[in-house]
Amino acid sequence: MPEVSTEYKNLMGKTLVALLSGPDQEGIVARVAGWIYEHGGNIIHADQHWDQEAGVFFQRIEWSVRSDTWADEAAFADHARSLGMTVRVEEMSTRSRVAVMVSKFDHCFHDLALRSKAGEFPAEFVAIVSNHPDLQKAAEGYGLPYHLVPALKGKKAEAEQQQLDLYRSLKVDLVVLARYMQVLSEDFLDRIGCPVINIHHSFLPAFAGGRPYHQAYDRGVKLIGATAHYATPVLDDGPIIVQDVARVTHRHNVNDLIRKGRDLEKTVLAQAVRFHLEHRILVYNNKTVVFD
Amino acid sequence: MPEVSTEYKNLMGKTLVALLSGPDQEGIVARVAGWIYEHGGNIIHADQHWDQEAGVFFQRIEWSVRSDTWADEAAFADHARSLGMTVRVEEMSTRSRVAVMVSKFDHCFHDLALRSKAGEFPAEFVAIVSNHPDLQKAAEGYGLPYHLVPALKGKKAEAEQQQLDLYRSLKVDLVVLARYMQVLSEDFLDRIGCPVINIHHSFLPAFAGGRPYHQAYDRGVKLIGATAHYATPVLDDGPIIVQDVARVTHRHNVNDLIRKGRDLEKTVLAQAVRFHLEHRILVYNNKTVVFD
Amino acid sequence: MPEVSTEYKNLMGKTLVALLSGPDQEGIVARVAGWIYEHGGNIIHADQHWDQEAGVFFQRIEWSVRSDTWADEAAFADHARSLGMTVRVEEMSTRSRVAVMVSKFDHCFHDLALRSKAGEFPAEFVAIVSNHPDLQKAAEGYGLPYHLVPALKGKKAEAEQQQLDLYRSLKVDLVVLARYMQVLSEDFLDRIGCPVINIHHSFLPAFAGGRPYHQAYDRGVKLIGATAHYATPVLDDGPIIVQDVARVTHRHNVNDLIRKGRDLEKTVLAQAVRFHLEHRILVYNNKTVVFD
Amino acid sequence: MPEVSTEYKNLMGKTLVALLSGPDQEGIVARVAGWIYEHGGNIIHADQHWDQEAGVFFQRIEWSVRSDTWADEAAFADHARSLGMTVRVEEMSTRSRVAVMVSKFDHCFHDLALRSKAGEFPAEFVAIVSNHPDLQKAAEGYGLPYHLVPALKGKKAEAEQQQLDLYRSLKVDLVVLARYMQVLSEDFLDRIGCPVINIHHSFLPAFAGGRPYHQAYDRGVKLIGATAHYATPVLDDGPIIVQDVARVTHRHNVNDLIRKGRDLEKTVLAQAVRFHLEHRILVYNNKTVVFD
Repeated sequence: MPEVSTEYKNLMGKTLVALLSGPDQEGIVARVAGWIYEHGGNIIHADQHWDQEAGVFFQRIEWSVRSDTWADEAAFADHARSLGMTVRVEEMSTRSRVAVMVSKFDHCFHDLALRSKAGEFPAEFVAIVSNHPDLQKAAEGYGLPYHLVPALKGKKAEAEQQQLDLYRSLKVDLVVLARYMQVLSEDFLDRIGCPVINIHHSFLPAFAGGRPYHQAYDRGVKLIGATAHYATPVLDDGPIIVQDVARVTHRHNVNDLIRKGRDLEKTVLAQAVRFHLEHRILVYNNKTVVFD
Repeated sequence: MPEVSTEYKNLMGKTLVALLSGPDQEGIVARVAGWIYEHGGNIIHADQHWDQEAGVFFQRIEWSVRSDTWADEAAFADHARSLGMTVRVEEMSTRSRVAVMVSKFDHCFHDLALRSKAGEFPAEFVAIVSNHPDLQKAAEGYGLPYHLVPALKGKKAEAEQQQLDLYRSLKVDLVVLARYMQVLSEDFLDRIGCPVINIHHSFLPAFAGGRPYHQAYDRGVKLIGATAHYATPVLDDGPIIVQDVARVTHRHNVNDLIRKGRDLEKTVLAQAVRFHLEHRILVYNNKTVVFD
Repeated sequence: MPEVSTEYKNLMGKTLVALLSGPDQEGIVARVAGWIYEHGGNIIHADQHWDQEAGVFFQRIEWSVRSDTWADEAAFADHARSLGMTVRVEEMSTRSRVAVMVSKFDHCFHDLALRSKAGEFPAEFVAIVSNHPDLQKAAEGYGLPYHLVPALKGKKAEAEQQQLDLYRSLKVDLVVLARYMQVLSEDFLDRIGCPVINIHHSFLPAFAGGRPYHQAYDRGVKLIGATAHYATPVLDDGPIIVQDVARVTHRHNVNDLIRKGRDLEKTVLAQAVRFHLEHRILVYNNKTVVFD
Repeated sequence: MPEVSTEYKNLMGKTLVALLSGPDQEGIVARVAGWIYEHGGNIIHADQHWDQEAGVFFQRIEWSVRSDTWADEAAFADHARSLGMTVRVEEMSTRSRVAVMVSKFDHCFHDLALRSKAGEFPAEFVAIVSNHPDLQKAAEGYGLPYHLVPALKGKKAEAEQQQLDLYRSLKVDLVVLARYMQVLSEDFLDRIGCPVINIHHSFLPAFAGGRPYHQAYDRGVKLIGATAHYATPVLDDGPIIVQDVARVTHRHNVNDLIRKGRDLEKTVLAQAVRFHLEHRILVYNNKTVVFD
């Protein structure tokens, strides 16, 4: 991502990013770029994708605007819609509000928290939600508000409602499942109103479901994997964002796979979260276009 | 693999390699190494593996022998068996006899043939068998005997019998399926009497069966893979020898996956064949121990 | 790369690709896309890069044109130049004319020849040039014209002149050094008038110069590499196009590194050649922008 | 590494590991394994390496002993020495004492601290030493003793003496330079009396010295790397333990390289530290044998 100096930013007013998709048509690139140019915007990054098979056009476009000549984001969105596009416009300096859900495995939680502190994400972590009290102190050490929502037998609906209320009150833009070990109900996912990113500890679609490292060990694979994807009602079946693998041999037992896998899970989840927060991802046909 | 100078080899008589496996027991390493030492053998490579969970011991051991003091391979094998081991002993200078089965996709065939010419395999390619005439000229260009065995509807049993007869008459030690597009029957695999290595163009167990690149494209994975495995009656389910992956993005269509996959298939299959021919692989529980 | 059906191509007349670079300026994307759109072109792929530090804009843009409304390539180039851009326009269906130079190591030669036969390159291999007779028969087997230009002591200038004359008479667009073991003179590179791609068998800038695998072995590195780059008068110092690495351990001796390295060299060189032939590479500041 | 249950450990008394190296000789494997067997030891892991060129034998051997029959470690070491070997014997349950030196970049520090808490290292972190106060609070949050030793101009000798005194008083077995930004003097390295592992943020030998990401950016490489090595008086020239790389493109500026590099540095350093602490590394000829 091109870095823009603060001075330049101030001069320019602000930087916007739009994600567009819609039926391919002649002149679409020119008509989007032309409108921005005519309204005093200066494009600083643009990436397109044409899915020839599906006949769909995708674009991520980033531009700076001078406060004196720029109309507004709504006007741009209207223009894009008049071209038949679905569109989302964001201001780059707006920091998303993120909730992280975690159970007892804490490696992804620590990794995300440290990256957040290091400034890797344009986001605020506004809530850590867990069904266990174990990470409360660690969360507070990072200055992150911690919410215990126990997963009691027969009380799933109440717990999910409590979570939904929390996310709504905190105006959460993204929920990250950082090895959260409870299955979220279809109802929860329907009602949450923001994307949910999950990390699954296998190379999907291999070894969906529980205990994937055990499954991988039993099958005798020579590579283990991790997959970050958007959560959908079908378990481990949502649009894949990032995947990576690590080499294993007959010498690695299940505990070794778990240990090696932790490193994969951390980097894969962090990269997916960063791509999402930088507005680089479009979803269609249960797949992702990732403009990296 | 340690290289031994020709001069040294002559002095020593010959170099042997043994693959052992059996129930773990105290002193097994000492009792194997001790026997070799007492009989004038000099170990030049040894690798062991203990599967703690299964309680099984595996060893690959390579040693040179002086012709004057060495008993014989049979005596060593008897000793290993007296320790409860399953054992196979090979002379390193013996070149295995390999048959390659191929259909129309020719990249793995060319790759194996060129590597064979370059001396990468301690083996003779004694037969190229195909259900199509397309590669006859290319095979002959490499100096490799080509056998056309058409896959005629309703004549599968006859074709397989013809292949079995050929392999028996040629004393074939290994059959390599280099993108051979016919499913081999359980009966064929039962009767062939030598290992069969297949290359599957996916990261197994994901996308077993037909058209794996299309399956991968439809699922929207971010990595494609290839898997070399020993063929068993259950399709794409045999012990995995080598796997590798390559990164893909939304920009790659199915043809791109196929093109990128060819490179994976070539290197994965070649590596598996080399490991096998160098007597580096032990199979158990539908998995492999690969002493690389 | 989006695939366009033959039918569609005929309807459209032809597909063009342009590589532009020049000082960054407001509205550059809109002004390029707008011109194409106004002249009846339909953009089917576009990729841009802004080097913020150097203040330079780079673009690769691919578009189809209807024969009835399209001006011509020269008119587009004039427009681009009027915007201060350096520009090159190519018709996608034009096949480049490639000469491959090779000595005795033949793995890259075979790899390129087989990929060419498989249709991986939009190019004709119009000459195989070697300082050794060894590969004459193989070249002819592929149907490729072979030219022996011996590297005689004290006759380097004459040999290079002979090569230059050949390339000029064949209208060669690209020379590929496929493990060609002679150093080309600065004079040769000045006069050749087309790009030269070399494969160096190390991860440059580590181990430039001779015997890089021996250098790597002596240093005890844990990864070996290969680098495809444009040849410049400074040995192994030109703009890097593609690099890749493979893992090695203390068990690998120099011969193992050489063997493993061959696979790296093949894929790295082939990928660089393909990127070049698909007009995906811009060079500046001794670096490359590769629009893949 | 094979896991041994606590119960089994108690029965067996203890588990030992030895690292041997010396001139290759006939029967060395048998004579080492035989001695252990005769003295009631049960080998649970053994790995050997013969450097044919140098004529040197290397071995890592791990065995459990029954307290009633086992002589002692010293007797084994004597036996190994009588065979001409250099030998080191360790008890597996002994936890090494590690000091971590860090400056302001904190990613490796946090990574090591969290892995230590997660039980990935058989070691105690007995001191965090820094020339800056920035990480004091974080260290204390992990329960790790923090020592500020400022790097004052003209006071390097005093600071190094203070560090040496500290390490001696704490009986430190290993010093880890986790992005410690001061060059250690030859005198310090001569006197420290324990190994020092450093992480260098490039693929050595490329880009030794300062600002390697800037060097890599300027050269236009397509992969960046990280190297963990034992520190020697020659800067960035010691025996390499682990290396890894990540892919970069023209789109990545120096800040992106730094960000991507952090992940490499963390995993490469952690793996090297773990290999060292598990007694898997032998050094010779400025190279390492890593029995992984």
